[in-house]
Amino acid sequence: MSADTERTFRLVVAYDGTDFAGFQSQSNARTVQDVLEAALKTVLKEDRRIAAAGRTDAGVHALGQVVRVSTTNRIPVDRLSVALNRVLPSAVLVRKAALCAAHFHPRHDAVLRTYRYRIDNRVVPDVLSRQYVWHVPTRLDVPRMQRAAAPLLGTRDFAAFCSAGSWTASTVRTLARLDCRRRGAEVLITVAANAFLYRMVRNLVGTLVAIGRGAVPPEALLEICDSRRRDRCSAPAPASGLTLMRVDYPE
Amino acid sequence: MSADTERTFRLVVAYDGTDFAGFQSQSNARTVQDVLEAALKTVLKEDRRIAAAGRTDAGVHALGQVVRVSTTNRIPVDRLSVALNRVLPSAVLVRKAALCAAHFHPRHDAVLRTYRYRIDNRVVPDVLSRQYVWHVPTRLDVPRMQRAAAPLLGTRDFAAFCSAGSWTASTVRTLARLDCRRRGAEVLITVAANAFLYRMVRNLVGTLVAIGRGAVPPEALLEICDSRRRDRCSAPAPASGLTLMRVDYPE
Repeated sequence: MSADTERTFRLVVAYDGTDFAGFQSQSNARTVQDVLEAALKTVLKEDRRIAAAGRTDAGVHALGQVVRVSTTNRIPVDRLSVALNRVLPSAVLVRKAALCAAHFHPRHDAVLRTYRYRIDNRVVPDVLSRQYVWHVPTRLDVPRMQRAAAPLLGTRDFAAFCSAGSWTASTVRTLARLDCRRRGAEVLITVAANAFLYRMVRNLVGTLVAIGRGAVPPEALLEICDSRRRDRCSAPAPASGLTLMRVDYPE
Repeated sequence: MSADTERTFRLVVAYDGTDFAGFQSQSNARTVQDVLEAALKTVLKEDRRIAAAGRTDAGVHALGQVVRVSTTNRIPVDRLSVALNRVLPSAVLVRKAALCAAHFHPRHDAVLRTYRYRIDNRVVPDVLSRQYVWHVPTRLDVPRMQRAAAPLLGTRDFAAFCSAGSWTASTVRTLARLDCRRRGAEVLITVAANAFLYRMVRNLVGTLVAIGRGAVPPEALLEICDSRRRDRCSAPAPASGLTLMRVDYPE
């Protein structure tokens, strides 16, 4: 078939990251990408590689990961997600499928990524949410965390919150949102930025929790950021509490 | 050691039932009872059998299961739950431990059991709660379900909602509560009774959902109950949505 018969789809994908070694394909480990590509092969009868907005780590979840795939298969647009969900394991779900431009790239074209971090702030943890939260038994001072978070908004160098292990040309990012709020027995942290550095959300949350516990003063968050020193931020929050909520594009 | 040096503990236990073949011990399957007894053996250095308030089915969860264990071990009361939680898998948690009378029996002495059933009523399911809900994509008419539920309160013969597979002298029970309400994208059904028949909650929920879908008229719930005919109720709701919330005792 010629290239002009090819169509490109944009999929919005949700997954429970608990039993996956992250999004991106790797040898000898089960990843979300592998499971999605296997399902696409079954449905489209073609071997296709996908591109995604974010390479989430092992144990990190998604409700709004964005994935692109091209195919010459003539499956109707409104049948694709149903067909994929029929063969996907229950931990992975295609929420939406739509046609998009052939040049669409989910990572390069994204203008805003939104993550949510859930903290179980009960003294005794909730066993039914343990795979989706970080259990912090000390009562967190959420207004104090929010006070620390507010000055961080805007465009700045976030090198202090970038873990070793990935290369990036620039460590400057634009933080559009960093909210801490209590919802029942949980503390929810919502973070949005044009893009994130490696483990940036988990490093930010780790330091915010140290502030909420009273171990670190609220002013420290901005100071640590301005120092650009990775060794000054707290240990990263565990993967289990993190979910990629949505990815926005200019349109 | 003589019997009078023995102490009896009442434990409140939470568990994620997803990966267990139910509460009660059985050969060739992992059960909550086995895991608890193994942890008790490690901590108490004694082989002790436990008694529990309810034998939850495979896949059913608990936040307030009540368990009794006796021991001659001198561990302080306030150390027991911490010591057990250190050796238990993360899916099982002892929330409280307290001394109780030697003759206390969690099943026979219970006067009220409360269960909650969670229904994910989104069109597209939430992958992060799939192990704790029943996904029903059809929008449920909750006021209609509540209308059906109210007349069922009180003492009556619930034989129609008792699945085959367990023997009981009487099928008369006292239903103290049967509430249906919407919370966000979920529908929650709370049921309390002095005791329940085998699969009674799941059979009640299955029929309530048929009513909420519009497939069965609201009056049918009481009629089915009064018919005492097991073949008239709808298929039982899946185990995943069910959680034993609490067990009350006269004190």
